[in-house]
Amino acid sequence: MSELRPIELRSDNAAGAAPEIVDAVVRANAGSALAYGDDDWTARLQEVARRVFEHETARVFPVVSGTAANSLALAAMCPPWGAVLCHETAHIVQNECGATSMYGGGAVMRGLPGDDYRLQRSSLEHAFAATGWGDNHVSQPKVLSLTLPSDHGTVYRPAEIADLAGLAAERGLRVHVDGARVANAIAALGCTPADVTWRAGVHALSLGAIKNGALSTDAIVSFDDRVTDELYYRLKRAGHVASKMRYQSAQLEAYLSDDLWLRSARRANQAMAQLAAGLAGLGVELTNRPDVNMVFVRVPDTVVDRLEQAGLLFYRISPGTIRLVTSFQTSDADVDEALARVERALDGR
Amino acid sequence: MSELRPIELRSDNAAGAAPEIVDAVVRANAGSALAYGDDDWTARLQEVARRVFEHETARVFPVVSGTAANSLALAAMCPPWGAVLCHETAHIVQNECGATSMYGGGAVMRGLPGDDYRLQRSSLEHAFAATGWGDNHVSQPKVLSLTLPSDHGTVYRPAEIADLAGLAAERGLRVHVDGARVANAIAALGCTPADVTWRAGVHALSLGAIKNGALSTDAIVSFDDRVTDELYYRLKRAGHVASKMRYQSAQLEAYLSDDLWLRSARRANQAMAQLAAGLAGLGVELTNRPDVNMVFVRVPDTVVDRLEQAGLLFYRISPGTIRLVTSFQTSDADVDEALARVERALDGR
Amino acid sequence: MSELRPIELRSDNAAGAAPEIVDAVVRANAGSALAYGDDDWTARLQEVARRVFEHETARVFPVVSGTAANSLALAAMCPPWGAVLCHETAHIVQNECGATSMYGGGAVMRGLPGDDYRLQRSSLEHAFAATGWGDNHVSQPKVLSLTLPSDHGTVYRPAEIADLAGLAAERGLRVHVDGARVANAIAALGCTPADVTWRAGVHALSLGAIKNGALSTDAIVSFDDRVTDELYYRLKRAGHVASKMRYQSAQLEAYLSDDLWLRSARRANQAMAQLAAGLAGLGVELTNRPDVNMVFVRVPDTVVDRLEQAGLLFYRISPGTIRLVTSFQTSDADVDEALARVERALDGR
Amino acid sequence: MSELRPIELRSDNAAGAAPEIVDAVVRANAGSALAYGDDDWTARLQEVARRVFEHETARVFPVVSGTAANSLALAAMCPPWGAVLCHETAHIVQNECGATSMYGGGAVMRGLPGDDYRLQRSSLEHAFAATGWGDNHVSQPKVLSLTLPSDHGTVYRPAEIADLAGLAAERGLRVHVDGARVANAIAALGCTPADVTWRAGVHALSLGAIKNGALSTDAIVSFDDRVTDELYYRLKRAGHVASKMRYQSAQLEAYLSDDLWLRSARRANQAMAQLAAGLAGLGVELTNRPDVNMVFVRVPDTVVDRLEQAGLLFYRISPGTIRLVTSFQTSDADVDEALARVERALDGR
Repeated sequence: MSELRPIELRSDNAAGAAPEIVDAVVRANAGSALAYGDDDWTARLQEVARRVFEHETARVFPVVSGTAANSLALAAMCPPWGAVLCHETAHIVQNECGATSMYGGGAVMRGLPGDDYRLQRSSLEHAFAATGWGDNHVSQPKVLSLTLPSDHGTVYRPAEIADLAGLAAERGLRVHVDGARVANAIAALGCTPADVTWRAGVHALSLGAIKNGALSTDAIVSFDDRVTDELYYRLKRAGHVASKMRYQSAQLEAYLSDDLWLRSARRANQAMAQLAAGLAGLGVELTNRPDVNMVFVRVPDTVVDRLEQAGLLFYRISPGTIRLVTSFQTSDADVDEALARVERALDGR
Repeated sequence: MSELRPIELRSDNAAGAAPEIVDAVVRANAGSALAYGDDDWTARLQEVARRVFEHETARVFPVVSGTAANSLALAAMCPPWGAVLCHETAHIVQNECGATSMYGGGAVMRGLPGDDYRLQRSSLEHAFAATGWGDNHVSQPKVLSLTLPSDHGTVYRPAEIADLAGLAAERGLRVHVDGARVANAIAALGCTPADVTWRAGVHALSLGAIKNGALSTDAIVSFDDRVTDELYYRLKRAGHVASKMRYQSAQLEAYLSDDLWLRSARRANQAMAQLAAGLAGLGVELTNRPDVNMVFVRVPDTVVDRLEQAGLLFYRISPGTIRLVTSFQTSDADVDEALARVERALDGR
Repeated sequence: MSELRPIELRSDNAAGAAPEIVDAVVRANAGSALAYGDDDWTARLQEVARRVFEHETARVFPVVSGTAANSLALAAMCPPWGAVLCHETAHIVQNECGATSMYGGGAVMRGLPGDDYRLQRSSLEHAFAATGWGDNHVSQPKVLSLTLPSDHGTVYRPAEIADLAGLAAERGLRVHVDGARVANAIAALGCTPADVTWRAGVHALSLGAIKNGALSTDAIVSFDDRVTDELYYRLKRAGHVASKMRYQSAQLEAYLSDDLWLRSARRANQAMAQLAAGLAGLGVELTNRPDVNMVFVRVPDTVVDRLEQAGLLFYRISPGTIRLVTSFQTSDADVDEALARVERALDGR
Repeated sequence: MSELRPIELRSDNAAGAAPEIVDAVVRANAGSALAYGDDDWTARLQEVARRVFEHETARVFPVVSGTAANSLALAAMCPPWGAVLCHETAHIVQNECGATSMYGGGAVMRGLPGDDYRLQRSSLEHAFAATGWGDNHVSQPKVLSLTLPSDHGTVYRPAEIADLAGLAAERGLRVHVDGARVANAIAALGCTPADVTWRAGVHALSLGAIKNGALSTDAIVSFDDRVTDELYYRLKRAGHVASKMRYQSAQLEAYLSDDLWLRSARRANQAMAQLAAGLAGLGVELTNRPDVNMVFVRVPDTVVDRLEQAGLLFYRISPGTIRLVTSFQTSDADVDEALARVERALDGR
């Protein structure tokens, strides 16, 4: 069956770049421009972002990865003796090799339990009750980091974010959103970008772009002047200020313009909705609610083997569980073909 | 005079990207590919680099800036209680906001004097004599970092690097080259890439690409397995592992292929040779020996003002001193026109 | 009832210093001596420690607190991208304000579950199975830290330490023991100091002295030359090398001489055994097995209030639970009197 | 000549402890007391310090070494992207193994030239003029650290400190004094402790005590609430909060009480004045102005050898130059005897 064309469902990180973004890079290659962000593309990016986020002083910092965005934003918000509270499955705890503790000068991450891979009000309340506030034996909670959507594809609604952020604010914590796939969440929620960020009490956003069509840049969006001031220096000394920044800014400008980011995210979400419905129709058990563009499903390992042989590309999470992720490049035909292969695999063919 | 077309001599950082490199990015946008370096472009990059550097186990790590390359390479080579020895004008001391001390966990940089913006044998000998070796009050010298070319456009010859590296090795130091413009140096020296790196005793190179035609990536080239092993983790936790790495690797593959990097550097060097000769012919005083693509010249401030009005783009270094830098995009016509404007400015026109 | 003399059961940290140790300090104040450890007291301390621990190259570093001992020893054993595995209730995770992550340059602590406040073989096996070994997204387990006794007064037997250390060694981890009260554990186990340290596969020990009679110094005991070499520099740059070190070393010399540390620990343990037996006889519920010098007991809050009014000094852990700790200064009379007051409080008097 | 009793002139670090301070420790060993500073001695220390420094909110933090005092105070005053300006011979640059950069999360130290081992107004002015203010390539000057007295025994007068602090304040820098021997300076200047600290614009003082009679503790004195708040957490996570703090606080209480610190310093200064006058009378060349308790003198190496044989204890700084330091324990008889031996050595006997 190796002649079957592969269908990419491993990760949206494996997808290519959006043509609009490649075009923007090509067009940015015109003439000379000052380095380190003193260029027209970076200036325009700020304007576009302020319009899109409806925030007059928002500041966008292009960075090369989501790990950089998360860890540098958190370091700018948390003193070295502080703790960042987040869900125990958060990417910053599980998948960033301690980046936040490194940039944070020894700040720690404290993973909390919560249903559905999300924090609830009670998660925070229990954590606060168990904290020795003002006791210097204990890393003091200083930042709340929410992942939107979670790494298991679940989303917070704007009111939920505002509620958690309000609870955090009572204790003086600032709030960060890890939005590696935030466009997918906004598209799914049908809300505005402001609704899940500053309007809900969020001070800084890790804005994912790479998984959704950019070439080489994600970004931090700061809604707080203190965070902005710190990031200006922190990014430079971390080597995260691109010298020819125009090529990074041009990508983000195109990404946020003409709704490209949300259109791309909607495409990925729709492909997933179609895929998840089809899987359910085939009697396959889904283990998460596929709010955005990823689903976790349970199938016997013999079926998993057959799916691999059939050219379906996906990740094995644990015995009997696989993860399927769609991207802006996943077509309806891809989904139909994937479902057909799943059906055959279930039938033992 | 504002109608005159600007001539870019501020920095090679202000130049655009080479068409071959833009094409490589566009071509890399084909199909899906695994993230974080598990892609064909990154694999091919390793092969190209090993051929170009004539070293079988060299390892290339794309990073987004020269600051990242320097500080992460140095952190991988220097224990936190160590000191990095370098020239007192080195970029790592003067222009990177303490990046090496941050990534190095408190390692310090120790700037040494030396003629011509370069270290001499005596610079190191004096530093070694003044060191309390094995005394825990004193940061122990552990790395020698040479800048090739220096930020003032002067170069070390391969034998000079080997001599300094040998002296360093006697004391157990490892050796790093900050090669933000190393292609210009190699082109000027007419040597091989190996001659100024591992063959001369160098363990890791910050390989500049952005100033010489890349879009969004420089690189670290490690010739030492211990450095390679550390960088694998250090880069990730610094957020310097691009998820869609293929778009970074494709640039570097193109850069190192078909001699593009050296051809581009030769062009910049030749433009500078022509410019420097012309300036000398006009009686302008040069304050450095323009071995590569930059020159510092002394002209009265009234002339400097006239040059700016005439559309020449350059940096004022101090009263009466300006810096002119050529790039791979500087044409013979640019140089001729620049010289004509200088002549007019000197004449008071 | 305020006229009743207070009985100290809050913490062994609240006890005074042993007369032998105060005398040693007074005697050390004779003549001049070189600073930073080049003195006779520090030299003799090394000899005493090597004899007591039966290890020819063991090296003792006096430090001012258990937090310093733990975090600096761990930083010397763990690369910045590493993880320190320990029980989820370990002092390093719960009570040291992120010291290990700070000194460790961003190394993280990973708290694992385990019965009885101790790690079991299965705790480690599960952690290892859940680790992405060699994956740079994940902080790599590099050190196992065991707390002996635990902060809840339970101990590992030598064979248990050796078993866990062996499992750790298979994966290349080094092993640390947080021995803030290790003398109490050794006394309770009836084993030798070597049995719970290097002979069981331990590379470095945080040797508590302050809780057991020292004035101003705990120590790190290193059984590994690499750790020793790193600590020499790491302690200095952390400001943890006392200039008049003789006054710290003299305390530790006295502490380890003539069995003082074990005699003092035995006294504390015996007082606790007597107290725990008495409490059980009064029908009070103990929530831990008081292997050493602390017990946690459950009594109604009205009784707790009465105990406080009766001049008993202890800590409230949570509603209905208090902690009682004995020290080398707790006399048989103190215990008898404490039990008498508990009996009255239970009777409602 | 080995039968001659040794005369200690190597360092005040080699002296013993003052009897008043040993007594204070012995007296503190009475009863139980809460750990980590919640004890009566630490409370009284605050009162004494506020009276001595005439400052109502000053806060004293005992720490185990001058390196700890300097580096933790500076880390609390300087952001990670900042630079600490100091004299190029300052202890923090030359003798602390990078401690400030470690605790400062990569903050750098920038040594400036200045006559007499002190900074002048022009030192700061030149440094400020050479700084790229607000440029993120450059570590931003954030703290001025003055050493009083310098490591070569020279002092700033209160008006000089105020002048430099004023200049620093114009640029937003905060001011630190490294006062490892500040008592000697205050005694020499005949001023009040306030005159050389907060009244002159100083925010934090490293208060040396060990070189002047304490057993095991120096201190940070903070005159700034922000510094105080940070130090509370920073000291704990650095392991610099002694658990049985009473024994450290008792030393400092005794030190600052009844003028002990200034009396001891005066004794050391007087011994030096007598020694320096005697040396000058013998025709020996002094290379510094012995404002406090140390002198550097030039004598032929043959004489140096003879002095060593004669039982004089001192440090060789460089060929032909030695350093002599007196302490509170240096008696008039010691000085007379030392001068007699110098005279004999000069005579070739």
